[in-house]
Amino acid sequence: MLKKMLNNVRKTTPLVHNITNYVTVNDCANILLACGGSPIMADDIGEVEEITSICGGLNINIGTLNAHTIPSMLAAGKKANELGHPVVLDPVGAGASALRTKTAYQLLDEVQFAVIRGNISEIKTLANGEGTTKGVDADVADTVTKETLPQAVAFAKAFSAKTGAVIAITGAIDIIANSETAYCIYNGHPMMSAVTGTGCQLSAMITAYVTANPDDMLKAVTAAVCAMGVCGEIAHNRLTELDGNSSYRNYIIDAVFHLDGDTLEQNAKYDIM
Amino acid sequence: MLKKMLNNVRKTTPLVHNITNYVTVNDCANILLACGGSPIMADDIGEVEEITSICGGLNINIGTLNAHTIPSMLAAGKKANELGHPVVLDPVGAGASALRTKTAYQLLDEVQFAVIRGNISEIKTLANGEGTTKGVDADVADTVTKETLPQAVAFAKAFSAKTGAVIAITGAIDIIANSETAYCIYNGHPMMSAVTGTGCQLSAMITAYVTANPDDMLKAVTAAVCAMGVCGEIAHNRLTELDGNSSYRNYIIDAVFHLDGDTLEQNAKYDIM
Amino acid sequence: MLKKMLNNVRKTTPLVHNITNYVTVNDCANILLACGGSPIMADDIGEVEEITSICGGLNINIGTLNAHTIPSMLAAGKKANELGHPVVLDPVGAGASALRTKTAYQLLDEVQFAVIRGNISEIKTLANGEGTTKGVDADVADTVTKETLPQAVAFAKAFSAKTGAVIAITGAIDIIANSETAYCIYNGHPMMSAVTGTGCQLSAMITAYVTANPDDMLKAVTAAVCAMGVCGEIAHNRLTELDGNSSYRNYIIDAVFHLDGDTLEQNAKYDIM
Repeated sequence: MLKKMLNNVRKTTPLVHNITNYVTVNDCANILLACGGSPIMADDIGEVEEITSICGGLNINIGTLNAHTIPSMLAAGKKANELGHPVVLDPVGAGASALRTKTAYQLLDEVQFAVIRGNISEIKTLANGEGTTKGVDADVADTVTKETLPQAVAFAKAFSAKTGAVIAITGAIDIIANSETAYCIYNGHPMMSAVTGTGCQLSAMITAYVTANPDDMLKAVTAAVCAMGVCGEIAHNRLTELDGNSSYRNYIIDAVFHLDGDTLEQNAKYDIM
Repeated sequence: MLKKMLNNVRKTTPLVHNITNYVTVNDCANILLACGGSPIMADDIGEVEEITSICGGLNINIGTLNAHTIPSMLAAGKKANELGHPVVLDPVGAGASALRTKTAYQLLDEVQFAVIRGNISEIKTLANGEGTTKGVDADVADTVTKETLPQAVAFAKAFSAKTGAVIAITGAIDIIANSETAYCIYNGHPMMSAVTGTGCQLSAMITAYVTANPDDMLKAVTAAVCAMGVCGEIAHNRLTELDGNSSYRNYIIDAVFHLDGDTLEQNAKYDIM
Repeated sequence: MLKKMLNNVRKTTPLVHNITNYVTVNDCANILLACGGSPIMADDIGEVEEITSICGGLNINIGTLNAHTIPSMLAAGKKANELGHPVVLDPVGAGASALRTKTAYQLLDEVQFAVIRGNISEIKTLANGEGTTKGVDADVADTVTKETLPQAVAFAKAFSAKTGAVIAITGAIDIIANSETAYCIYNGHPMMSAVTGTGCQLSAMITAYVTANPDDMLKAVTAAVCAMGVCGEIAHNRLTELDGNSSYRNYIIDAVFHLDGDTLEQNAKYDIM
């Protein structure tokens, strides 16, 4: 299953339009190339509709949103909806400022998202304003553990039912849910949180996966999230004593570049709830 | 010949003003330092003329152009023209949106470029609106092959005659042309297209080379393009089984850092048409 | 002493708000994570006060300032002052354009900085408009040498007395001064200047250190500057023949990731004047 999803990305080279933050944008471009997609970044209101039209999918990330890019996000999102392109939302820091929270709500109101990916605090903020986002990282109080997993899965399914989007809550355990089914994924490594933008990169990669697999978005997102986690593991195995978070960043993208369907299938760890 | 061009960069430390995209800007800065230049990035209309005045050359890249940076590109370009500084244009994605195409035309109208570097689709768009740009990559239909090379060379020479700029069409085979002479370069490695921004980096490096070699721009551009290709080869030889496009990015810049004139001369593969 | 400063960063995970340039922002984020801090980047006037409120410290870097981010810098700086958060200024390129110089002056007028870090040309420009900034690098004429050190130390102390900020003048020899005491630091490696943004990264890291050590800012800045220098040395020792400035960038951040208090204490080279 996952293998087919990965291979469809490599076969079809999905062109992904990214309106994203300037912090991690280079890594997003390189991970899109690594997984078999093709990135284009464009955020001026004068061209975003046209750019999104020539692409297959749209990735909206509010990491460094501003007064000029917010209207671009809305315009591109609506255009992608018109064209039936999948749109992914990464609500970076929703809950950390009123502007971020308000923008995320407005995007949810005006754009139909195929996928919403964030940490648990961000997704809670979107769902009910109750997240306790601390900066751009999930608050410890919100962390999904084995104990709280059933509750978090129910929450993700309910939010998917409400939004019509596949919900991807990523963290130590990742939850990928539509209104009926959830995949709980146990791949990855804690050190990934010491690399800036692994979440942003994952959202970009998810966009490539859903663009290449429009008929099964839930499994496409699951495949992308497993791929990122497996690559986090492969890259971690490669670290020498001297390698830290900067080399780790490179090795993760390198691992995505080399990942094949069989390695993904064999190493993906998930169950279905 | 190429050796002298490279050494002039290392000897004179050309200060290069870049108005460029936020995707690959860090790599552009590091490759400028690697080749012996010195980068400065500045794009506010309130300072671009002054910044360009203290520099030796100007690199304009429209990769993430917007309503605020377009006037800055025009103002800086005109100022550089006044001062006799070489100006390089990288028309990223020209043809992919009306805004990009129109901006590129306006830049060509109002600024005299020393060099225009792009992929074949972008350059065709500039020349006659006939490119079939797909995102920021060249369309396969446009690819320069051994068979279509004479035609592409004639096209490059004609566009140089029209614009007064050295034309650099980069791809599997690179064509560097003025109105009379073209260098066809066979260096590089296909994997370079899996690294975001190798084109942007090359445009930045070209700016350093023409700034340091104002009396022979055609050879200066040829030297820079050969240098990038040779470094792509050196870096590729260094890849381990685990290295992918992210490590490759680092190794290319590392190779530029170490490249000397003799290595460049010995490994450059080109003919003159 | 330095060890305690470092450990306080690792223990308290200071959340640092960065309004910084788009050239080196990714490296700033990764070095903040590497040293034990947590980065957030936000520059829209609509959220900067709120974002700075949830953080512990604020890092203002004018490397790619523009008409939209200048008011954000002022607003965030004033808010941080209100809340008693330490604010660090990195006046990148002050002296290179009137906009940069004027903005730096305005920031000094309206915001109380805890630390000002720049090269000697930038700091001279701030102090008396006499720097001879060449682009974003210090002018050779301004360089601090063993001979000019006493004079430079006196200058730094006087500027600290005037501004109330700890002054960090970084270069081959670094000077960290308040009005009474100066630390002169001899760590680092000349090749660090071939990596774009080592100064920006240091300013980000300084912000984490002063946020975690509010009771002794002078020593906190000294610890951060020594840490960067020691890591530049560790990373340089790791370079192979093929590694250049791009791998060096990664290795420096990797070294910060692994740096412990004992290694810092044992390798820091400074004297007090």
